[in-house]
Amino acid sequence: MEYPSKLIEDAVNQVAKLPGIGKKTALRLVLHLIKEKEESTFSLTDALNNLRSKIRFCSSCHNISDAEVCGICSSPRRDRGLLCVVEDTKDVMAIENTAQFNGLYHVLGGVISPVNGIGPSDIRIESLLNRIRLNQPEIREIILALSPTMEGDTTAFYINKRLHDVAIKISVIARGVPVGGDLEYTDEITLGRSITGRTLFG
Amino acid sequence: MEYPSKLIEDAVNQVAKLPGIGKKTALRLVLHLIKEKEESTFSLTDALNNLRSKIRFCSSCHNISDAEVCGICSSPRRDRGLLCVVEDTKDVMAIENTAQFNGLYHVLGGVISPVNGIGPSDIRIESLLNRIRLNQPEIREIILALSPTMEGDTTAFYINKRLHDVAIKISVIARGVPVGGDLEYTDEITLGRSITGRTLFG
Repeated sequence: MEYPSKLIEDAVNQVAKLPGIGKKTALRLVLHLIKEKEESTFSLTDALNNLRSKIRFCSSCHNISDAEVCGICSSPRRDRGLLCVVEDTKDVMAIENTAQFNGLYHVLGGVISPVNGIGPSDIRIESLLNRIRLNQPEIREIILALSPTMEGDTTAFYINKRLHDVAIKISVIARGVPVGGDLEYTDEITLGRSITGRTLFG
Repeated sequence: MEYPSKLIEDAVNQVAKLPGIGKKTALRLVLHLIKEKEESTFSLTDALNNLRSKIRFCSSCHNISDAEVCGICSSPRRDRGLLCVVEDTKDVMAIENTAQFNGLYHVLGGVISPVNGIGPSDIRIESLLNRIRLNQPEIREIILALSPTMEGDTTAFYINKRLHDVAIKISVIARGVPVGGDLEYTDEITLGRSITGRTLFG
């Protein structure tokens, strides 16, 4: 595609680097910015620059935070006996949205994925183990809330193995038929797990 | 949705202002930028700031341009007798991509749309009429290449009316069955137009 201006071409190339955005969408977004007032572009770029240069991570759970220790880790109302291990910030937000969990989090920042060259040392597993050792009497249970994928399972398996000498209950979130889902259309692995992992009625 | 940081919230709100991008996608993009190196964000924002502050429009056709007069308008190889009227830059790029047109363009910057409060004076119709008057003996034909929508048709009709006293051929791009399309699935209006607008075989 030939662009009418080098400025457009540069902008399109940069925007198209974002995940899930191709050159056509990038061009649409860039032409939208040109149509809008200059200030719209400047407030967008200011927000992104600000974010990228000032963003901090909680020194305890590694979640994104505005302070040295995040709001969840510093809250006196959270149960310090429960530690939920998740892949990233999106998962923390999703679990917080359910309002079903009142413990603390540990954000790994990824999962073990040999295909993508991500090993245990590339994510925050050592920090998790240290945190558990330091707070051992206080922490009653580790909840592994990782995605039900090959990588998520590998990571859960690895963490479980590394914690075999620590006397703490380790659980994983339930796998089963999604609420509102149709049995008929549930894949056989999920349906199988929902049967082997059945719970008492009521 | 509660965000773990005010910086994230601001960035998500700004990104979600872009057309076709909702809060969920915005969050995904913003978290991607945090994961990547700082430089990726800064080259993105630099390209956008650069674009928005330096972008210029061709003084003749109003297309986006790096110079006072764009490459197409200043090219000695283009046929100055053909003037193709389009809605915006994307249309110029699409027509240039076909390599079937060798004339000049006129970019209206929109179409007449009473619903959106866009009247004839909000788009570059006066500039088109002036341009035609100034170059009248040279211009042989005006090609109206507007989208086959209510707004496009209204705009074409209005331009045609304003040019009734100018002795220049005015044409519209052909409407008909898309190449590779299936007759069976073509809507009746398009199919009807393809019959009334039939051309000689071969």
